[in-house]
Amino acid sequence: MKTWRQGREARDARLAAGAKLADGKIVAAGDATSLLEAVVRPGDRVCIEGDNQKQADLLAAALLAVDLAKVNNLHMVQSGVVLPEHLDLFDRGVAKRLDYAYSGPQSARIATMLFGGKIELGAVHTYLELFARYFIDLTPNVALIAAVSADRDGNLYTGPNTEDTPTVVEATAFKDGIVIAQVNEIVDRLPRVDIPGDRVQFVVPSGKPFFVEPLFTRDPAAITESQILTAMLAIKGIYAPYGVRRLNHGIGFSTAAIELLLPTFGEKLGLKGKVASHFALNPHPALIPAIESGWVQQIHSFGSEVGMDDYIRARSDIYFTGPDGSLRSNRAFCQVAGLYACDMFIGSTLQIDLQGHSSTVTTSRIAGFGGAPNMGSDARGRRHPSEPWLQAGQEADPDGPAPLRRGRKLVVQIGETFGDKNVPLFVEKLDAIALADKLKLDLAPVMIYGDDVTHIVTEEGIANLLLCRNADEREHAIRGVAGYTDVGRGRDAAMVQRLRERGVIRRPEDLGIDPLDADRSMLAARSIKDLVRWSGGLYAPPSRFRNW
Amino acid sequence: MKTWRQGREARDARLAAGAKLADGKIVAAGDATSLLEAVVRPGDRVCIEGDNQKQADLLAAALLAVDLAKVNNLHMVQSGVVLPEHLDLFDRGVAKRLDYAYSGPQSARIATMLFGGKIELGAVHTYLELFARYFIDLTPNVALIAAVSADRDGNLYTGPNTEDTPTVVEATAFKDGIVIAQVNEIVDRLPRVDIPGDRVQFVVPSGKPFFVEPLFTRDPAAITESQILTAMLAIKGIYAPYGVRRLNHGIGFSTAAIELLLPTFGEKLGLKGKVASHFALNPHPALIPAIESGWVQQIHSFGSEVGMDDYIRARSDIYFTGPDGSLRSNRAFCQVAGLYACDMFIGSTLQIDLQGHSSTVTTSRIAGFGGAPNMGSDARGRRHPSEPWLQAGQEADPDGPAPLRRGRKLVVQIGETFGDKNVPLFVEKLDAIALADKLKLDLAPVMIYGDDVTHIVTEEGIANLLLCRNADEREHAIRGVAGYTDVGRGRDAAMVQRLRERGVIRRPEDLGIDPLDADRSMLAARSIKDLVRWSGGLYAPPSRFRNW
Repeated sequence: MKTWRQGREARDARLAAGAKLADGKIVAAGDATSLLEAVVRPGDRVCIEGDNQKQADLLAAALLAVDLAKVNNLHMVQSGVVLPEHLDLFDRGVAKRLDYAYSGPQSARIATMLFGGKIELGAVHTYLELFARYFIDLTPNVALIAAVSADRDGNLYTGPNTEDTPTVVEATAFKDGIVIAQVNEIVDRLPRVDIPGDRVQFVVPSGKPFFVEPLFTRDPAAITESQILTAMLAIKGIYAPYGVRRLNHGIGFSTAAIELLLPTFGEKLGLKGKVASHFALNPHPALIPAIESGWVQQIHSFGSEVGMDDYIRARSDIYFTGPDGSLRSNRAFCQVAGLYACDMFIGSTLQIDLQGHSSTVTTSRIAGFGGAPNMGSDARGRRHPSEPWLQAGQEADPDGPAPLRRGRKLVVQIGETFGDKNVPLFVEKLDAIALADKLKLDLAPVMIYGDDVTHIVTEEGIANLLLCRNADEREHAIRGVAGYTDVGRGRDAAMVQRLRERGVIRRPEDLGIDPLDADRSMLAARSIKDLVRWSGGLYAPPSRFRNW
Repeated sequence: MKTWRQGREARDARLAAGAKLADGKIVAAGDATSLLEAVVRPGDRVCIEGDNQKQADLLAAALLAVDLAKVNNLHMVQSGVVLPEHLDLFDRGVAKRLDYAYSGPQSARIATMLFGGKIELGAVHTYLELFARYFIDLTPNVALIAAVSADRDGNLYTGPNTEDTPTVVEATAFKDGIVIAQVNEIVDRLPRVDIPGDRVQFVVPSGKPFFVEPLFTRDPAAITESQILTAMLAIKGIYAPYGVRRLNHGIGFSTAAIELLLPTFGEKLGLKGKVASHFALNPHPALIPAIESGWVQQIHSFGSEVGMDDYIRARSDIYFTGPDGSLRSNRAFCQVAGLYACDMFIGSTLQIDLQGHSSTVTTSRIAGFGGAPNMGSDARGRRHPSEPWLQAGQEADPDGPAPLRRGRKLVVQIGETFGDKNVPLFVEKLDAIALADKLKLDLAPVMIYGDDVTHIVTEEGIANLLLCRNADEREHAIRGVAGYTDVGRGRDAAMVQRLRERGVIRRPEDLGIDPLDADRSMLAARSIKDLVRWSGGLYAPPSRFRNW
């Protein structure tokens, strides 16, 4: 006889087992492993909260220490595989199967473990895609999350790093799952309620802040003149003619250079108020000068950034903040905003092939996708027009009947022809293909597909792929900005010249930009200390970025 | 001197003005208009909560009654333009500009008002797209929302109709906006907390339930044999060969027929457990027999459905429910799930043209988009493979290199060649184009674009557009299932025959289906009363669906 409430009964049994270790909802940090042994069952789908920023580090360590006779063969479903403990779980046999989105610092080890068969891989996702599956076929049985503080009813305050928490909790708590939160401290009254207590079953005070990585801080001192040139090209050759107001910037020095050129180069071009006013973006310190100069109207953020708290609090007109004054971030909504409400995504990559496919995978590293493929894809479900979007659509299909012609999301890849350690950006074949072969993956881990890319910017110029009418033109548009890489040297000079005459390729001189002007003096801030000065002392960079 | 906290200061001033009418956060229903006059400013962006289901009806009426000297020229940014009051606002001059997603029952009047210049149209969106813009460039200054109950701290219980509330509140409350909730009653302790009180500034007890439309109830008695035939074709010709487990069904009798055939026709085909197990779907009463027969593993819902509360509560293994036992719906997350975690969208439409574009617009009605374009589009940001998705991708591009070949979302349009009132489903030119022309819209309001549609199912057969290699094949695949409509009669019989030989077109007999078997006796339930019986008396249909 099917009860139809098996999930609820199982949860009640887990709750009762955990309650023995709890005072109300509160469980001492020293009992965290016992709590997990009491509530987690073999084979459970478990989410340890963590993405590219915040980490439920205490609970990850506690899960690693469980008695294998009680907890084993877990199916981990989580945004980030970032801490060593996340992979130690598989080495020890606590976990067996993995579905995830991002693994930056563990990208080499995760590749080794996949090759060695230590991990049964479900799939590598984007954040939003994994969140989507939390509600359909990858709903967690147990979620281990992180917050700043809790009250005795289990209400949680996440502070500026709300990030994935509401999404993970919603999927777990409303499908008979168990939510366990590590918190820095228990307080009588929360500064604000980020998660209502009735969605949280157990709270573990850790006595110290959860781990947060300052991933979105780029020191202006490390920006090269070649990055400044690509930034100038992007601003004058893309931001200006399309009038891009709503956008997302990827992580990297090239986009940091753009942020730092808005108040100087952008100002000279008269673009203030006309471009780059509304962002889906983390609180990048490099954007401070543009904000202070009045460029930016509004920013919604996936997560926060270490050191930016006081600045955000004092600039609440720009950021989303709570009644406590601190940032309210939300990765799910910001990804949705990046997908459907932004007209441009611009970011860097490691490899681009002749079709324009790009990837951050090398044969020995699987970094995952994070958010870029979601924001760097043409949103075909979009139905509202905007000028940049319509203009891009028209360039792609000038003969199409206007009312039936969709616009296009601008998806821009920006980089130097030779990147870090002089490795060429352009390749005949992506390493991702060799990796897919080696791991027998159905799909090569391509970050952005060529048919979604609209522009490629290097120090040699801009390739506008929207204007290419066939695969051959596309290939030569790419070769034509690939500089002295093998791909670049493989160009047919006459064809590249024809593409340039048509404006498919635009050189710096075609845009009236003298590469000799690409000087570090153009950056609105040339050091972290400059950023602190711009912020009126409100930005407090992490110590590793301080050299004064 | 810029303060950078103008939004916060403005909110504090609005709060202070509203507080004069409030006891704590509570404002009497009779003072609702005065409250709005106190806190709403001319030109504000205002969201009145309401979609295709729940409506903040008391607050809509209260806003309509404001003194025009105090409140005028509002920019309404809301999911649904559904109540007459929503349009009366524009007639009276309270509101001026409109961005919205859905306007089912007001579709004729909204068209007339647009023609007459009474409304300044921003754009028609999908739900998810409008939500996205709430965080970027259409953030509400004031949100008027609806909940079942509140406590004195302003914590809200939405009950099963959570729907858009968390999204609207998040965008408004964390960007210095004012959230005003109408609630049926004030209680001492909420059954669960759907919205934390610190995001809600004012609560107006209305003394009666907010309006909810039972939009997803289809009476099995009205299902025709021709709809049963198309349902059989879909199940045997699409669900089975692709093995579609994760899906969304649009509203309509054709998909209701599918739901009612799973436990009969589907069972005979041995498909139980192999297809239709995980849904992004409202609690359709027509799915009860499939649930009771063990077909369905999990459903996440955009909203609830009138009469389904007790059934949901007793079937918590299937639905997402809260600690109070009732449904927790969430439109934003369910739309994300439909976009990224479902392999198929199947729905009906009013018109399909020769390119496969479809639209529910007629020259005199603008129904809006709701959710279909989002779910009925190929999600190019998707990175996780599944068998149906890979198979569809391979059919579309059999010669593409496997690791670089993306899969495809199955997007199925199902309908009878002649629909309601014998109007042909297939047309040479969509009425949407004439409408775009008349209203000078940049984009014709196309529901699903032809390049996203993979299959069209009519009583004449299935057209698999994935297998078409050019526009001519595509046109004839469509003509080949268009029956005796003008479009169907315009077919080149030899070409249609060739497409049939290639399996691009499949007739009932090609699938071993005898149209004479398409009999109402095949439906697992043939009336609303049957559904009540299947539910063990737990389903309580609204009175208008009761005829016993």
